[in-house]
Amino acid sequence: MALKLYYSPGACSFAVHVLLEEIGQPFTQECVSIPQGMTSSAGFLRINPKGRVPVLVVGAEVLTELPAILLYLALRHPEGNWLPTAHPMALARCAEWFNWLSGTVHTMAVGQVWQAGRFIGEPCLEAQVEAKGRINLTQAFERIEGHLSREPYAVGRQYSAVDPYLHGLSISSLDSACATTGGPARSETCART
Amino acid sequence: MALKLYYSPGACSFAVHVLLEEIGQPFTQECVSIPQGMTSSAGFLRINPKGRVPVLVVGAEVLTELPAILLYLALRHPEGNWLPTAHPMALARCAEWFNWLSGTVHTMAVGQVWQAGRFIGEPCLEAQVEAKGRINLTQAFERIEGHLSREPYAVGRQYSAVDPYLHGLSISSLDSACATTGGPARSETCART
Repeated sequence: MALKLYYSPGACSFAVHVLLEEIGQPFTQECVSIPQGMTSSAGFLRINPKGRVPVLVVGAEVLTELPAILLYLALRHPEGNWLPTAHPMALARCAEWFNWLSGTVHTMAVGQVWQAGRFIGEPCLEAQVEAKGRINLTQAFERIEGHLSREPYAVGRQYSAVDPYLHGLSISSLDSACATTGGPARSETCART
Repeated sequence: MALKLYYSPGACSFAVHVLLEEIGQPFTQECVSIPQGMTSSAGFLRINPKGRVPVLVVGAEVLTELPAILLYLALRHPEGNWLPTAHPMALARCAEWFNWLSGTVHTMAVGQVWQAGRFIGEPCLEAQVEAKGRINLTQAFERIEGHLSREPYAVGRQYSAVDPYLHGLSISSLDSACATTGGPARSETCART
């Protein structure tokens, strides 16, 4: 089945890239730059009316939302053990990470810092939303750092599809935005994955 | 395995209640009222440091994040067909809905309307965050209404664990907050589920 990934450089679509490369199945890709406003273009909105990347096209199916795309790829390629699909609680733990990372960390905190206009209608007040976003993101980083200082990976003692997402949210540009320094456990885990 | 649900009346933990009742396995429950600030109490933060409901305790495991809880219950009780676990794309479609409902609709838009303090540090500016939240929530309702006017359920032609979550987000109090009227397709689906 032909695969096509719509992505933006430096965005969380990075995690899908990692998994596709590890799976090794050929895929095509198209850049939809967030900074250049391409996710809001009429052409891309016809593909994903939500105006977000990543999008994975699988034959005639257009799949959105990063955790859903990672789940699909892991289920289609069980040989890679990207997710513990045979163990309900372990798989639920992956879903727990996905949901928190995608909702509370990414859509909310990262969104506040970089897309403040989604949260308030007055451009002159966006700086206040960004400031609260930095506080939220710093708290999230502390939680991630706390976990990775006790455990080698997000879930259990095995690498999973959650880890490249964690990695993508630990990039230095986010640390810069928060004036944090990239906790040692996060940095070590990024290096290992 | 003993099950205990921490919930708040009228919150999205409603969807877990529905599934637990349908499964029929005995469970205990404890109210942690959001309006009364109980999710921020020291006692509850020891159970879930994120300060959110629902929480499902399964023996010694404490599971958070609504989609993760629904996934766990559906995987543990495959006889109910609450999720299409044997079909990667269909299960990914459920994950797509879960992620969008939980992140963009619930954490972001509903949060802006009812928990504006998460998004801005100045209480005097919360009304502006709420106003933008109502716009975001109205757009989300339009997307849900559009889908349900074409399809009987969230995913395919079968009821799934996504539907009680959709139902929970279609309650009249949210419509009141947005001055919308509860689109006919949403209302019909709620009645059917």
